[in-house]
Amino acid sequence: MRQDFRWFLPIPTRWMDQDPYGHVNNVEYYSYFDTVVNRHLIEHAGLDPARTAEVGLVVETQCQFMKEITFPQTINAGIRVIKLGNSSVTYQIGLFRDEEEDPAALGRFVHVYVDRGTRETVRVPDRVRDALAGLVV
Amino acid sequence: MRQDFRWFLPIPTRWMDQDPYGHVNNVEYYSYFDTVVNRHLIEHAGLDPARTAEVGLVVETQCQFMKEITFPQTINAGIRVIKLGNSSVTYQIGLFRDEEEDPAALGRFVHVYVDRGTRETVRVPDRVRDALAGLVV
Amino acid sequence: MRQDFRWFLPIPTRWMDQDPYGHVNNVEYYSYFDTVVNRHLIEHAGLDPARTAEVGLVVETQCQFMKEITFPQTINAGIRVIKLGNSSVTYQIGLFRDEEEDPAALGRFVHVYVDRGTRETVRVPDRVRDALAGLVV
Amino acid sequence: MRQDFRWFLPIPTRWMDQDPYGHVNNVEYYSYFDTVVNRHLIEHAGLDPARTAEVGLVVETQCQFMKEITFPQTINAGIRVIKLGNSSVTYQIGLFRDEEEDPAALGRFVHVYVDRGTRETVRVPDRVRDALAGLVV
Repeated sequence: MRQDFRWFLPIPTRWMDQDPYGHVNNVEYYSYFDTVVNRHLIEHAGLDPARTAEVGLVVETQCQFMKEITFPQTINAGIRVIKLGNSSVTYQIGLFRDEEEDPAALGRFVHVYVDRGTRETVRVPDRVRDALAGLVV
Repeated sequence: MRQDFRWFLPIPTRWMDQDPYGHVNNVEYYSYFDTVVNRHLIEHAGLDPARTAEVGLVVETQCQFMKEITFPQTINAGIRVIKLGNSSVTYQIGLFRDEEEDPAALGRFVHVYVDRGTRETVRVPDRVRDALAGLVV
Repeated sequence: MRQDFRWFLPIPTRWMDQDPYGHVNNVEYYSYFDTVVNRHLIEHAGLDPARTAEVGLVVETQCQFMKEITFPQTINAGIRVIKLGNSSVTYQIGLFRDEEEDPAALGRFVHVYVDRGTRETVRVPDRVRDALAGLVV
Repeated sequence: MRQDFRWFLPIPTRWMDQDPYGHVNNVEYYSYFDTVVNRHLIEHAGLDPARTAEVGLVVETQCQFMKEITFPQTINAGIRVIKLGNSSVTYQIGLFRDEEEDPAALGRFVHVYVDRGTRETVRVPDRVRDALAGLVV
């Protein structure tokens, strides 16, 4: 339910998100995941995608699709953190259509932190741990 | 300039709009064009993309790129109509970053109206003419 | 491994599949899944996306990312069916870079068949069952 | 016509290239442009998008849409150079469906070369001039 998530971002749909079945294509749901997670990191964890030394790379994602989404609905994407590990962060994500309380989709999104240059695994940086503290459940 | 456009839609950028050069890829600018034009038609001209008998198909688009756009900037997409013909509509589109007055990009977007089933050219419907009247310059 | 999959489609990467980290964005992997599954259904199961009465809607997808993909690599997308149920089909998908034997990504993709108009669940049609018979493991 | 172009790349369509009108969305045509131009530069002009000092940024694109494209058609994208200036290159691009001789779309694509770091305009590098020599008409 919407109240179970900790941080939200409104994401308006775009015309071309849709496919010939007249609804948002399943692939686009993951672009909403990617957008809400990175937007939170930029606004609250000091991520500068062009420069930050430690970046989160995606190692696993998953989505259950419960309701169709159609343009021009706006999605409210909510996130919470279910595991904050040594080098990885596991998010749960809920996508809610307009003002609805039950989700159109539920997702899982796992970041592993690596050094931008070497791609070696590193510890989740403190700036990220601080930013995620309020999202952990 | 921003004041030259008649109807605006805020379009937040998404993480994956960007390419390896660290800015929004040129292709995505056209998805902003497509979104602002269709959103206006849905909200003001009664377009139901799944059912309306006469639909606008794109026959020409063009874009000049003046400034780079980066996530998470929000684009304000403005439109105006420079030609409202018998069967076609020509829009000019300006993309403005956040609160800027001068455009990041200027575009041209031409719709020809066709019958959804036969794809034969038809007259621009009155519901569209009425909706566009205030946008013509 | 590559030999565990039953049907393959080469999918060349595109420049804009990539994101600012200089590799194919995680979201695009799912567009490769969507493309290989639908291409198989069109070529072997008589799917006509504009007309077929029973269509597969995606209810769950999942992906593990093992290796980065960069433009202009070509992906060889392999599929097999691990569950052919009454109304659903569960695919496993492997994405292989160029001629590699071990996958860059492994995915799961679940279709539920519905009536195009009513969106009511229907039995997986025989034309689909016949086409998938050789992919079941 | 197809014979007027100098270098070709086959680009298979993807399921999600399509929109609710059951054809490839107009925006995607530009991703085919972007892909054929960059693929040529990588294969023939030594472009390494992650490292090359001088990169081409897009300052103008344009497209005329003549025929609808539908999945799973393969596009043959052809390019030629109509202006090789001091710091800019202007391409014409033709998109041909499968084996057709007349184009589904004709495009214009203008690159300006800049220094990756400063974004200052630079001269088109000799490695690019050499690679484009055979494409100039």
